[in-house]
Amino acid sequence: MVMCPQLLCFDDESAFAGCMAETAGMESAVIARHRFPDGEIRLQLPPMLPQRVVLLRSLHHPNEKLVELLLAARAARALGATHLTLVAPYLAYMRQDKAFAPGEAVSQRIVGDWLAELFDALVTVDPHLHRVLRLAEAVPVRDALALSGAPLLAEWVARRRSRPLLIGPDEESAQWVASAAAARGFDHAVCRKIRHDDRRVEIELPRMNVSGREVVVFDDVASSGHTVAVATRLLLAAGAASVDLAVTHALFADDAERLVRAAGVREIWSTDTIAHPSNAVSVAPALAAALASLAA
Amino acid sequence: MVMCPQLLCFDDESAFAGCMAETAGMESAVIARHRFPDGEIRLQLPPMLPQRVVLLRSLHHPNEKLVELLLAARAARALGATHLTLVAPYLAYMRQDKAFAPGEAVSQRIVGDWLAELFDALVTVDPHLHRVLRLAEAVPVRDALALSGAPLLAEWVARRRSRPLLIGPDEESAQWVASAAAARGFDHAVCRKIRHDDRRVEIELPRMNVSGREVVVFDDVASSGHTVAVATRLLLAAGAASVDLAVTHALFADDAERLVRAAGVREIWSTDTIAHPSNAVSVAPALAAALASLAA
Repeated sequence: MVMCPQLLCFDDESAFAGCMAETAGMESAVIARHRFPDGEIRLQLPPMLPQRVVLLRSLHHPNEKLVELLLAARAARALGATHLTLVAPYLAYMRQDKAFAPGEAVSQRIVGDWLAELFDALVTVDPHLHRVLRLAEAVPVRDALALSGAPLLAEWVARRRSRPLLIGPDEESAQWVASAAAARGFDHAVCRKIRHDDRRVEIELPRMNVSGREVVVFDDVASSGHTVAVATRLLLAAGAASVDLAVTHALFADDAERLVRAAGVREIWSTDTIAHPSNAVSVAPALAAALASLAA
Repeated sequence: MVMCPQLLCFDDESAFAGCMAETAGMESAVIARHRFPDGEIRLQLPPMLPQRVVLLRSLHHPNEKLVELLLAARAARALGATHLTLVAPYLAYMRQDKAFAPGEAVSQRIVGDWLAELFDALVTVDPHLHRVLRLAEAVPVRDALALSGAPLLAEWVARRRSRPLLIGPDEESAQWVASAAAARGFDHAVCRKIRHDDRRVEIELPRMNVSGREVVVFDDVASSGHTVAVATRLLLAAGAASVDLAVTHALFADDAERLVRAAGVREIWSTDTIAHPSNAVSVAPALAAALASLAA
């Protein structure tokens, strides 16, 4: 008996999984999770699993979820799965790709190697890679596939703003902003960023006239919100008609959203890699298509 | 250059580590930990490590700490350590040693195997093992050593109560209570427990006269506190002069301590495997001695 691949998810992502499964023509099931008073968790998977299993887990605030992945992946193999794919719309621990100070744990390599021990394949969206450019280097699974939310967000922006100017808040966003702009022929540029610590950043606007322009600040992730807030104030001071924010990952730690709103951001548009009220575009269909290409 | 083993700990356990290191004649150092706004953590270890490294981490509320262990253990190896010992005064995920329902993740095996991939040796105190009796079966490291807090607590009780009656709240505690009682020739017995779910338990007292006795309820771990609370009420109703509580692991989830106090428990004595105001006896010297025996 050959069964179709099955998509497994957790209860807080069952709607997303349902959408993916429907597009991909797969069955989906929820992993039951019980939390004991002492903080330990118990997982229950469907007792009959096909050989190919896909596990959906977006890894924002990752630590607890990484332990869930360990339990779920090893349990799936014990229940008969021989090929495990992780679909992580948001992938964690990709920033620390080297020891910036002696003795630092290189978490990208450690978490990447560890995910590759648990899974055979990985599909994600806009992983935050810098010095390590290929996803398969960061997470050395047999098949590693990184999609981008940039063209999806560019489509969305094209339907809402005429002749928008896409601005990346730092040099790291250059390639990403360029690909979004290219999809629709939008003007684009990036700021220069000098980061002092997690919460203090200095920004230099690109040398161009933003006066009267409908600016969309475009980035892969909004985390503390400080970079976006600083850029927004500078853009509005320089005469921009409006500033909207388009991000793949709406991480928005703590009071980040309040911060960017207070700086004058008009609308926030994000993909649904992380569930958030600003979600405007779904990556579920693209992830489902990617799964189909992996299975082929 | 051969260097002595080094003991690494996290900031919240530096006092315990200092006590262990002093007894064992080792050097200790704190792993610096930074938490980013998005929930990721960054660890920094001493950049020069000896070949033998001991990592101290008590694993109550374990999920975040398990990720810290992953990062710390792999980073330690990258920095030159070739033999890693985990000292976990409280060891997590030891209860689920089989699938009680089809499809359940057998977390003892999964977490145990995983710890054995990270570490060469393990020292712990009173692991909560049932069907799997030997620690090395649950966590298949080369050297696995389980100490017991029972004789330490029995010593403590002997100095505070004359002719105490030690009562185990369920059959699982029988061997543990017996060994504590044997150390000082105390009377002892166990209750019968019928567990309905995490928070509802039924208890049957042992068939003996407890009237006028100074009872000490003895257990390896106090978690929800419900079992102890029920047993305490029954013992006081049966005429016990007093009920104290002695436990190795003061886990005390949520309002567990209030619950046992409200049931009439007079004093709570615990070891310091988990930091708690009830800590009366330190296991640090015994753990240091165990480390010395492993190294020999």
